[in-house]
Amino acid sequence: MGKIPCAILGCTGLVGQFFVKLLYNHPFFEIGLLTASESSKGKRLGELLEWGDKGNFSEELKGKEIKVTSVIEILNSGVKVVFSALPSSIAGPVEGELREKGLFVFSNSSFYRMDPHVPIMIPEINPNHIFLCEAQREKFGGFILTNSNCTTSGLVLSLKPLLDFGVKRVFISSYQSISGAGRKGLPSMDILGNLIPYIKDEEEKIERETKKILGSLKDGKIEAMDIDLIANCCRVPVRIGHLESVVVELERDFSLEEIFNAFDNFQGVPQEAKLPSAPEKPLIVRQEQNRPQPELDSDAGTPERAKGMAVSIGRIRKRGKFLSFFLLVNNLIRGSAGGSVLNAEFAYYKGILGR
Amino acid sequence: MGKIPCAILGCTGLVGQFFVKLLYNHPFFEIGLLTASESSKGKRLGELLEWGDKGNFSEELKGKEIKVTSVIEILNSGVKVVFSALPSSIAGPVEGELREKGLFVFSNSSFYRMDPHVPIMIPEINPNHIFLCEAQREKFGGFILTNSNCTTSGLVLSLKPLLDFGVKRVFISSYQSISGAGRKGLPSMDILGNLIPYIKDEEEKIERETKKILGSLKDGKIEAMDIDLIANCCRVPVRIGHLESVVVELERDFSLEEIFNAFDNFQGVPQEAKLPSAPEKPLIVRQEQNRPQPELDSDAGTPERAKGMAVSIGRIRKRGKFLSFFLLVNNLIRGSAGGSVLNAEFAYYKGILGR
Amino acid sequence: MGKIPCAILGCTGLVGQFFVKLLYNHPFFEIGLLTASESSKGKRLGELLEWGDKGNFSEELKGKEIKVTSVIEILNSGVKVVFSALPSSIAGPVEGELREKGLFVFSNSSFYRMDPHVPIMIPEINPNHIFLCEAQREKFGGFILTNSNCTTSGLVLSLKPLLDFGVKRVFISSYQSISGAGRKGLPSMDILGNLIPYIKDEEEKIERETKKILGSLKDGKIEAMDIDLIANCCRVPVRIGHLESVVVELERDFSLEEIFNAFDNFQGVPQEAKLPSAPEKPLIVRQEQNRPQPELDSDAGTPERAKGMAVSIGRIRKRGKFLSFFLLVNNLIRGSAGGSVLNAEFAYYKGILGR
Amino acid sequence: MGKIPCAILGCTGLVGQFFVKLLYNHPFFEIGLLTASESSKGKRLGELLEWGDKGNFSEELKGKEIKVTSVIEILNSGVKVVFSALPSSIAGPVEGELREKGLFVFSNSSFYRMDPHVPIMIPEINPNHIFLCEAQREKFGGFILTNSNCTTSGLVLSLKPLLDFGVKRVFISSYQSISGAGRKGLPSMDILGNLIPYIKDEEEKIERETKKILGSLKDGKIEAMDIDLIANCCRVPVRIGHLESVVVELERDFSLEEIFNAFDNFQGVPQEAKLPSAPEKPLIVRQEQNRPQPELDSDAGTPERAKGMAVSIGRIRKRGKFLSFFLLVNNLIRGSAGGSVLNAEFAYYKGILGR
Repeated sequence: MGKIPCAILGCTGLVGQFFVKLLYNHPFFEIGLLTASESSKGKRLGELLEWGDKGNFSEELKGKEIKVTSVIEILNSGVKVVFSALPSSIAGPVEGELREKGLFVFSNSSFYRMDPHVPIMIPEINPNHIFLCEAQREKFGGFILTNSNCTTSGLVLSLKPLLDFGVKRVFISSYQSISGAGRKGLPSMDILGNLIPYIKDEEEKIERETKKILGSLKDGKIEAMDIDLIANCCRVPVRIGHLESVVVELERDFSLEEIFNAFDNFQGVPQEAKLPSAPEKPLIVRQEQNRPQPELDSDAGTPERAKGMAVSIGRIRKRGKFLSFFLLVNNLIRGSAGGSVLNAEFAYYKGILGR
Repeated sequence: MGKIPCAILGCTGLVGQFFVKLLYNHPFFEIGLLTASESSKGKRLGELLEWGDKGNFSEELKGKEIKVTSVIEILNSGVKVVFSALPSSIAGPVEGELREKGLFVFSNSSFYRMDPHVPIMIPEINPNHIFLCEAQREKFGGFILTNSNCTTSGLVLSLKPLLDFGVKRVFISSYQSISGAGRKGLPSMDILGNLIPYIKDEEEKIERETKKILGSLKDGKIEAMDIDLIANCCRVPVRIGHLESVVVELERDFSLEEIFNAFDNFQGVPQEAKLPSAPEKPLIVRQEQNRPQPELDSDAGTPERAKGMAVSIGRIRKRGKFLSFFLLVNNLIRGSAGGSVLNAEFAYYKGILGR
Repeated sequence: MGKIPCAILGCTGLVGQFFVKLLYNHPFFEIGLLTASESSKGKRLGELLEWGDKGNFSEELKGKEIKVTSVIEILNSGVKVVFSALPSSIAGPVEGELREKGLFVFSNSSFYRMDPHVPIMIPEINPNHIFLCEAQREKFGGFILTNSNCTTSGLVLSLKPLLDFGVKRVFISSYQSISGAGRKGLPSMDILGNLIPYIKDEEEKIERETKKILGSLKDGKIEAMDIDLIANCCRVPVRIGHLESVVVELERDFSLEEIFNAFDNFQGVPQEAKLPSAPEKPLIVRQEQNRPQPELDSDAGTPERAKGMAVSIGRIRKRGKFLSFFLLVNNLIRGSAGGSVLNAEFAYYKGILGR
Repeated sequence: MGKIPCAILGCTGLVGQFFVKLLYNHPFFEIGLLTASESSKGKRLGELLEWGDKGNFSEELKGKEIKVTSVIEILNSGVKVVFSALPSSIAGPVEGELREKGLFVFSNSSFYRMDPHVPIMIPEINPNHIFLCEAQREKFGGFILTNSNCTTSGLVLSLKPLLDFGVKRVFISSYQSISGAGRKGLPSMDILGNLIPYIKDEEEKIERETKKILGSLKDGKIEAMDIDLIANCCRVPVRIGHLESVVVELERDFSLEEIFNAFDNFQGVPQEAKLPSAPEKPLIVRQEQNRPQPELDSDAGTPERAKGMAVSIGRIRKRGKFLSFFLLVNNLIRGSAGGSVLNAEFAYYKGILGR
C-alpha cells in the first residue's frame, strides 16, 4: 500500500515549516500539496524555508510550488488528509468546510479545540477521545482533530501519571520561548533582554484545554475533569522550548520514588503501537539538579523521528502534600506540528483514515 | 553636623559598585574607604568601575585608591559605618570582628542573616526589628544589620500589605536576571538563549528569610511567621531585574479593589521619615496588561535617589481564594545595595549610629 | 522671551519617544503638539510611552492628547517648529507641505536627505551648510533640515578630525542594534541569538550621506566629497547603540599620538556656543583595550542633557598607512532624535527660526 | 583492517565534547581513551557531556571513565593517534612529549601553530604542507599537526579561490560567537545584550596564521605568503558560528560571475578523496540577500558527517577593485574539532599514520 498523500496548509509559518520537516520522508504520509497565503503564491518551497529544514530536503521537495490556501485548491489536489497550520481566523471556515467535504483535518489551530464535537488529542493520554472523530465522520463525512496548545501539551503529559495520586490543584508558571508567538509575531524590541508576563489568551487556553484533555467520556460526550488550575504565563528570550514551573497538590500522600517511577514508566498507546513519531519515553526524568534546559533538552526523544516529542522533567521535590517540578516541552514539535503528526499516525493506526 | 564617613567592602563586584553609586553624594554618608580583594590592590576606583556609574563620578572619587579588605585597614581608616558586599566566606569573620570593634555593619552577605542576633531588615516592613541592633550594641559594641536576599525583598514587600487578609500559603516562581549571580558568576554559555531552573540555595533563602522578616517579637527574640511558602527559582537571560510569578492563598475573602488599594496605599516608616532612598510608593501598581517588565520597570521609584527602590506589581487577578500577580524588583538596588543603604538611613534616623 | 512651541510628528515610535524625552523641559523649545497615526488617535501620551521616559514626565505631559498627523492639524496648532519622526513614505508630502507653509522642519526621515536644497547637518561638522536653510526660506518660506542616518552620524564624526591627514578610503563594518529597525521593525525570531548581515539601503545611505555631509560649498551648492567608502552592515542582538569597525587609509603619515589628540581635541560650533545638547567632547577616546561597548558607552556625553550625544572611540591602532578603530554611537540619540534636537538648537542660535 | 584507536585529550571542554561527537562511530577511528583535568577524574563521560551530543551516544561511550591527562596515561593506553583540545599552557609540554614518543597528535591548541616544523593544515588549501609531518616523523618519531584558529579557518577557505585574482590586501571584521571563548571563558554580564570589540591575541592569530597556511614550500620550509591583512575582532551574543565581514583588494579585474564560480567550484583533495568529514562543497554561495546567518547556516555541509564543515558565503559585491562579502564558519566544527578530524582523515588517506 502506498503512502497517503496529504496537504500542509499554511506551510510557510513556523509550525507549517515544522509540518514539512516532520512529514518529509514519513513512513505513512507523503506531501501532496503545500499552501500558504496570497503573498507566497507561485513561489517554491525552497525559497521560503528557513527553520524547518535548514537545507536537508530533496530538490524535488524544495522545487514544489506553493498554492494559495483555498478549499477548492485542496479538493482539486485530491488529498484526503490535511495538516493545518492556519491562523485561527482562517482555520474556522476552511477546516469546517474541508470536514464537510469528507477530509480528515489534523489542526494546530485553536479554533475548534473547545468545540464539543472535536477532540484535543494527545494519544498517550486520551486515545479514547478518538471516538469523537468517528462521530464527526458520521455527521460530516470528515473530521477535525486538534493538537493542544503548546504549553498545555507539556503540562498535561506530566499530569497524566499523577492522576493516580489524586490531582487536586495545579499551579503553573511558564517560561515560553519566542517561537510560540510565530514567525513574525513578536517584535525584537519587546523581548530581547526582557520578559513579558502576558501572553494573550494563553492562561485561559491552558486551564480549559487541560480539563478537556483529561476529561472522561459520558453519554457520548467529553466531560471536563474537575481540577483547579492556576496558570501565569510569561514570554522569555529563548528561541525554542517552553519551560514550566509546576506545583501540584495531590490528594494521596506520596514518596518521591513513587513519583519518579510514575513519570519514568509512563507509556501509552503510541508506544505500544510503536508509532513513528512516538518517543520511547514520553517523559524523561532528569536527575541533574539544573535540568531541564531549553538548550540541552528541547530535542529530547528517541528514536530520531521522535526528537522533540519527549517532555523532560527535573527538580522533582516533595513539600508536604505538594509536588513541585520543572518541565520542558518543545513547543514546535510536541507542542504543535509534532502533536498533530502523532495524532495522524494514531488515526492511521486506528484505521479511521478511510481505506 | 558633617556627613558620616563609611567604608565599602568589596567595592569592585556588582553590588559593591552599586554601593559606590548610591553612596556618592549621599546626604548622610560619605565614602571614606574602599576595599577589595588582593587582585585590585593599589588600583584606582576609576580603573575598575563598569556598571555602577558609567562615568558620572567626580575625578576625586575615581582617583581613590582601593585598599585590600582587612579588619586592620578598616579600623585604621577611622570609619564607624561599613557597607559590606563581601562574599559569604569572608563576610563571616570580617563582619563579626568589625562588630566586636564597635563598628556598624550594613551587609549584603547572607552569612549572618539567619543569626538570631541579627535582623534582616526592610524598614517598610519590620522597623521594630531594629531593637536587635541595640541589643547587639550592648553585647558586642557594634552591630550587623543585613538586607535580605534579592528575590525575597520583592516578595516580602508584596506580602506585607496582604497580611491583613491572612496569608496562608505562597507559591512563587522566579525569573532571575544574570546580575544576581555576580560580576563573573555565570558563564555566558550557560544562559545566552537558555534558562537554568536552579539557583543554589535560593529557594531555601526565600523560604526562611521571608518567615524571619515577617516574624514578630517575642521575649526579645524574633519568632518566625508561620507561613507555607513554595519557591521555584530559575535564571533567565536578562541583565537586571528579578520578575516573580506569585500566587497567594488568602484566608479572608477579598475583592480586587481591596488588594489594589492595599498595594497602592502601602507605606512605612521610611516614607513617613522621608529617608533619602525611600521611594514615595514602595509598591507601584501597573494597570497595563503586560507589565511589569525588566526593561521598563527596573528603575521604578521616585524621587531620583529612590530609583530602583520601588517594586512594580501587575497582572493582579483573583481566582477564588487565590490572589495571583507578577512583581518586579531591581535585584541590585532594592534587592541588595539599595536595601542596605536604606537600612543605614533608617538606623541614622533612629539615632543608633553612635553620635 | 518664552520658549518656542514645537510639534513632534510620529511621537509614538522609538525616535518619536526620544524626541519627547529630549524636548521635555528643554530650555529653547516646549512641546505644543503631538501627532501619530490613526491608531493612536485620541489616546494620551502616558498610555503610549514605553522607552523614551520610563515614567519621569509630568502629569501634564502624560495627559497630552495625541492628534492624527496631518498638515491641517499642525498648521492649526500654530507651531512654527516641527520635529519629524515620520516614516519616509509620509514624510515626503507632509514635510514638503509644511515647508511651503513656512514651517521649520527638523527631520529624522531619509526622504529629503539627498535633496540638493536640504542639508544633512551635524553642526560639529558642517555648520556652514546651514546657508541652504536660508536659501530654502527664501524659496519656500520654511525649511527642512535633516539629521543623518544613525550609522553615518558616528562614522562622519570620527572622520572629520581625520580630514587633516587626508582621508583616502574608508572601510566600515557595522554592528547595529535592533532599535535601529524601529519599534516593531524586526521580528524577534530574526535576531535573538542571531546576526543578519543585511540592512535594507543602509550601506548606500552611509556611503552617499557621508560624502554629502563632508561636502564643500561651491556656487551655492554642496559638492560631495570625493572619498572611497565601502560599508558592510549587520544587525546584532543588542538593544541600543551601533558599534562600527573602521579602517581608514590616510594620505599623510601619522603617529597614534597625533590621532589621539585630533580625536580628543575635536570640537565645533555647538561646543563653542554651549548649545544645551552639545556634549563637551563630541568624541571620547577610550584607552581600555575592550571599549567601546554598548552596555557601557551608549550614554556617553556630559552634561546630563548631552547623554548619548558623544561618540566613543577605542582600540585605535596604526597599521602602516591604515588607521583602524572601533566607535560606538547611540543610534536613538546622536544618531536620530538627538541629532535633530541639536540641529534645532543650532538653528535657534543662528537666529534663523524666524523671530 | 580495524579502526585506529585514538585518545581525546581535554574531552570535557567545548572543543573536547565536539571531538567526542565527531569521532563517535567514525569510519577510521575509534575512541580508546578520554582524558581531562584532575577535577573530572573518575567521572563517566555521560555525567559530563552537555553540548557535543545531547544524549545520542551509546551507553558504552557514556559509561567510559575519564582519565587525568598525562603522558604516562596516554602511552599506557596504547593509542597512536591523539586529538588534543588542551589549553595552550598544557598543550606545549604534553603534545611535544607525545610526539617524541612516536604519537601522531592532531591539535586544536595554538601552542605549536607557529612552530616552523608544524603545519597548520586545512587540507582543501595546503595539502602539500603534510610533508612537514613526514619531516617531524623522521626527527621525532611522531608528529604534531594543528588546525587553524577558528576565525582564520573560514577566512582562508574563502581566500584560496581568490588567489588566482591576486589577493593584495584583506580587511576583515569579525562577529564571533561566545562558544569561541570556551565553556566558561566568558561571563554572561560581559556579553548578554552587549558587544566586546576585543578578543585577546585573535587579530594577531588571524594575520599570521593566514599567511602561513597560504604559504608555499621553499627549501623544505614554509614561506609565509606576502599579503596585507587587517583584522578587527569583536565578540557578539550568539552561541555558535563566527560571521566575518570581508573586503579583499584584488590585483586583477574581475566580474562577479567569475567570483561566484570560483567559490562555487572550489574543491580540494578531501573532496576528491571523499574523506568522511569533507563537505561536498567547502564553500556554499548563498544568493539570498540576507545570508549567511548563524541560526540558519552554522550546520552547513553535506553529507551528514560534514555538517558544520562548509563555509557559507553571501552578499558578494564588487566595488571597483574591491570584492566584499560576508562569510560564516562553524567555530566548533570547521574552526576547531572538525578541522582536526579532517586533518586526521587526510593523514590516514596519505598513509602516514604508521601502518
